Parts: sequence; structure tokens; C-alpha cells
Amino acid sequence: MIKIALDMMGSDYGATKFIGGLKKYMEVDKSTCFVCFGKKDELKELENNPRIEIVDCSEIVPMETDVLHFLRMKDSSMYKAINSVKQGVCQGLVTAGSTAGFLAGSTLILKNLPNVPRAGFCSPFPTLDKNKMTCILDIGASNTNSGNELVGFAKLGSIYSKEILGISNPSVYLLSNGTEKGKGLEETKQAYDILLNEKSINFKGNVEARDCLDGTHDVIVSTGYPGNIFLKATEGTALMMNKMIKKAFKRNIFTKIGYLLAKKGFDEMKETMDYRRSGGAILLGINGVAIKTHGNSDETFFFHSISLAYKMINNKIVDKISESFK
Amino acid sequence: MIKIALDMMGSDYGATKFIGGLKKYMEVDKSTCFVCFGKKDELKELENNPRIEIVDCSEIVPMETDVLHFLRMKDSSMYKAINSVKQGVCQGLVTAGSTAGFLAGSTLILKNLPNVPRAGFCSPFPTLDKNKMTCILDIGASNTNSGNELVGFAKLGSIYSKEILGISNPSVYLLSNGTEKGKGLEETKQAYDILLNEKSINFKGNVEARDCLDGTHDVIVSTGYPGNIFLKATEGTALMMNKMIKKAFKRNIFTKIGYLLAKKGFDEMKETMDYRRSGGAILLGINGVAIKTHGNSDETFFFHSISLAYKMINNKIVDKISESFK
Repeated sequence: MIKIALDMMGSDYGATKFIGGLKKYMEVDKSTCFVCFGKKDELKELENNPRIEIVDCSEIVPMETDVLHFLRMKDSSMYKAINSVKQGVCQGLVTAGSTAGFLAGSTLILKNLPNVPRAGFCSPFPTLDKNKMTCILDIGASNTNSGNELVGFAKLGSIYSKEILGISNPSVYLLSNGTEKGKGLEETKQAYDILLNEKSINFKGNVEARDCLDGTHDVIVSTGYPGNIFLKATEGTALMMNKMIKKAFKRNIFTKIGYLLAKKGFDEMKETMDYRRSGGAILLGINGVAIKTHGNSDETFFFHSISLAYKMINNKIVDKISESFK
Repeated sequence: MIKIALDMMGSDYGATKFIGGLKKYMEVDKSTCFVCFGKKDELKELENNPRIEIVDCSEIVPMETDVLHFLRMKDSSMYKAINSVKQGVCQGLVTAGSTAGFLAGSTLILKNLPNVPRAGFCSPFPTLDKNKMTCILDIGASNTNSGNELVGFAKLGSIYSKEILGISNPSVYLLSNGTEKGKGLEETKQAYDILLNEKSINFKGNVEARDCLDGTHDVIVSTGYPGNIFLKATEGTALMMNKMIKKAFKRNIFTKIGYLLAKKGFDEMKETMDYRRSGGAILLGINGVAIKTHGNSDETFFFHSISLAYKMINNKIVDKISESFK
């Protein structure tokens, strides 16, 4: 039986949206069980459901936490959710709470699988191709990484891409400041040389940040700090341009009519860009399924996050990663 | 008298577009003189102009060059253009050629100004605010930088923002993976502490990549590698979304009519996003004005690049940088 831990308290909107997402999900999946961690008062709606267990928690991990602070918050909803995976009560967890807390807790409590040099924080992102998400890791579990750790990310990303995004032989690229071999950070160059001889990886060389979004790449491997910058720069640009598009259509009565006529095209674009479909970012390489969704997630986003957790558990991602690092 | 060196050969389109841009520029500026470096045969159109001197060059620096290779190409248009600034014949140069060649040549031939810890490659980029460009440095003259070098970038960027973008007291931010002090790379944290006490800099703290494009920041300081990733990620996302917008409008007859009605709004958006207005990227902190424009620049882009070179020379940017590092 699959049982998923849900930290109900990390969202910017309290537990409301998460509850909504969970209810929707339970309509399509009639067997999975859930342990919901949070303030009992806010979870009343979930009481008396045979598939839901509620664990009352007195604390909420604040957004700006650090490792030591987090480790002291043993009665927080996030700590308890992570710990329930450690204890084997649940096989995976979803939280919308503090990224720092999530990374500290998932790494220190769940721990890396044997031989995984470093856990990789992985995020899928939308591309020009409506049906194609590319994933990038690491996006900030670390700032810097060794060449060997990058090779580990390549493996982790490949497994994720294959098992969750359904790509049979995922292409793997190193994010760099030039496509030629020899470009980039020292550690990227080291990883390049190792990956050339890694037969289990479909390594395709370097990719520049400007080409990552065309939908022709499957896995992008980067050290954590530039990976984080990459992902946030794409989000920021998309946000800016969406605002511009809205402004362009609101200019006058003609542009407003123009919008009504072009609406179907822009709805499709909106759908293509909808990162909620991704379900959130995943810490790969640890002993359990751990998903971090946006703090401002709505019901749809939470729905997809729970679906992703289910899929990762059902597809035995952790076992497959464990196997590939043997 | 202002004299600008133009490497006519680096563009993807040969000399044609550069010639067009130069001709346009010479219509609005009736006094500046130019030395055009390139294959004489391709520059015939510029002959017999009293303000233009043509220097025949046998070689073109290829896109993929390295320092040693570049330094051997002494008869290339780029080497000669840079050298003419070194010799004091010209006060600045514009090239659309190899970035690696440009950075190697500008740094090694023109050399850093005294006390400038590291030259910073600086690029303005469009923001949500139509009238506001933000600039970021370093975007790849180095991969990594010390805290002290980042402080130097903060100074260089402030001078550029003030003198060229016309911002009276430019706000300076460190690009990081979190807004709180203590976030980011070790060198960023070091720079943070120094900048807090630098009274000449209007330091505002850290900024995350996703917030850089809202038009409320003047100068973004980063180590070279993530700076490069940031800029290219924004370019890639903008490119992707522009393609999506085109596709959305081309969907059917209604969306096409929608486009005609909304055209004015989208023209304004296009204008806001038009990075050609920036004139290109500038290597700041060296003894001369050195501008690198896109390889695929059109006439308008070259026009702005030459304007930028003129403005930098006329505003005595090099002297002002020199003064501020005394």
C-alpha cells in the first residue's frame, strides 16, 4: 500500500489549497493513503476519511531557516513529514514549505543512497514544445559540485527523465558557457571527460543557457549555484513577458478585441508554459521520495505534486536509483 | 577629435550590415572619424570618404579562438582594431567578432587600468520598464571572481550606469540564490561585507535571478560564470516566448485578425524587449573603450554600437574609471 506524507502547513495560503488539491487527487486515485501533518484545527475538513490520518504538529518551519534551527524543530509539520518517510510509515513526502528546511531535512534525515556522491535537486521546466519538459539538476542543494558529483547528477536526471517524463533514452547535456569541449568550469570539464566514457548515459556534450528551452534536450546537468540562477532567470523572464503580453492586450479597445480573437492561441501558450504540471522539484539520490512544491501553489499544483509523489513511489524510483549506483 | 576603430569583419553577414550601420550613424554625427579594419575588397563602399580610413587586413579571427591563437593573428582585423586603440590612434573599438578573441585581445593588449582588480564584461538588458535598462557584470570575462573583484565590478557598473544609462545614483545588487545576507557563493558573501562599507556605492543587498527583470535594479554584480548563465537564460526564454506568441497569432483566421487589432500593443512590447538599443556588451576597467556587439547584428544594432562607443569616449568613461580606482 502506498502512503504519502503531506506537510500541510508550508503553503503561503495555509492548508486550504493543499486540502483542495488532495481532495481532487483522491477522486482519481482510490487506493493511496495519506498522513497529513499540520495544525489539527486547520485540517478539520480531512477528518473521518478512512484513507487520511492526521498528525497534529505544533510548529511550522519558517521560510528562512537553517540546518541547526530546522533540526531543533522536531514538532514541526515538515520535520515530522520527513521523519515519517525515514520511519518507513510513508514512502514519500510533499511539502510547499521552506526550501532550506526541505533540503536540510531530506538530506540529513533520509540520507543519500549508498554510492550517490551528492543528492541533486531537480526541476522540470516547460519548453517550446508543448509536450516536452526538460529537467535540470542541481538547482541549489549545493552551490558548487565536483566533476564526479555532476556525473552522479547525470545518472539521477536520466532515471527521472526515463521513469517520470517517459523518455526512453534521455539525452544529457552539461550546462556551460560554450558548446565546445573545454568550455566552462573546471568541474564541468572533468565531468565532460568522465561522461564521454559512461556508456549508461546518453551524453551529448555542452549546452548554452540560451538553447536549453527549445525542447530538444532531456536532462541538463549543472553545479547548484548556476543551475539555480538558470532556473530563476527563466522564471523571471517568463513572468516579465507575461506581464507585457497582458499590457499589450489591455492597451485600448482594439487590442482588447484582438485578445478575444487570439484567446485560443494564447490559452495554448499558457498551457505550454504551465509549470504546475511538473508537480514541483525533487531531491534525487536520497533514501525516499521528497518533493518540494512552490510556496504559492494552488490546488492544481498540489494535485500534480501528489500525482508526482505517487508516480515516483509506484515506479520504484528510489530502488532504481539505488540499483544504478551499485 | 574622436576616432573609433571598427572591426568590419566579425559579423555573420560579412561587412554589409556594419557598413549600413556606419553610414546611418555618420548621418547623425558629422564629426567623428573612423578607421575601418577589414578586407579592402569588401569595404569599397567606404572608400573616398574623408572621415573614413580603411586598413586592409588579411585575416579574420574565427569564432572559436583561444588566447595564443588570437595573439598570433597580428594581421587580423580584430587584432589591428584593438591595437589601434593601444597605439592611441583611436580611443575605442567596436567588433562583432569572436568573444574569446575580443576578451583576450582587449585584456592583454589594452590592459587593466591601475588598481582595477579585474576587467568586467558588462551587458545591459531590457526590463519590464520600457525606459529602463539594467546592466549586469561580469558576464564571462572570467568564470570565477574574488570578493574584491566583485567590489570592483560594483564600481565599474555604477560608473557605466551613471554615465551611459543616465542614472544618477545607481542601485547595486549582488546576484545570489537568496535575498538574505549570507546567501550565495563565498565570494559573494565577502563582497557583501565590503560593499556595506563602501560609501561610493549605493549597495542594496542581494537580488535573486527571478527579480532582476522588473526594472527596479540598476546594476547587478555577479561572478562571470553565473552572470553568463543568467544573461543567456533570459535571452533563451525571451526567444522561446516570442516564438510562442507568433505561433499563437498564426493559429487560425481569428487569431490573425486578433494580431492585426493588437499589433500596436505588441509593437510596444517588441520595442521594450529590443536589446539592439543597448549597443552591445562592454569590457569595463581596461585602458580604452571596447565594445562587443552580436555576431548577427543588423544595421540598427551596429548604429547603436557606434553611438555607444562615441558616448563612452565623449563622456570620458576611461578617465572616470581610472579616477575612481585611484
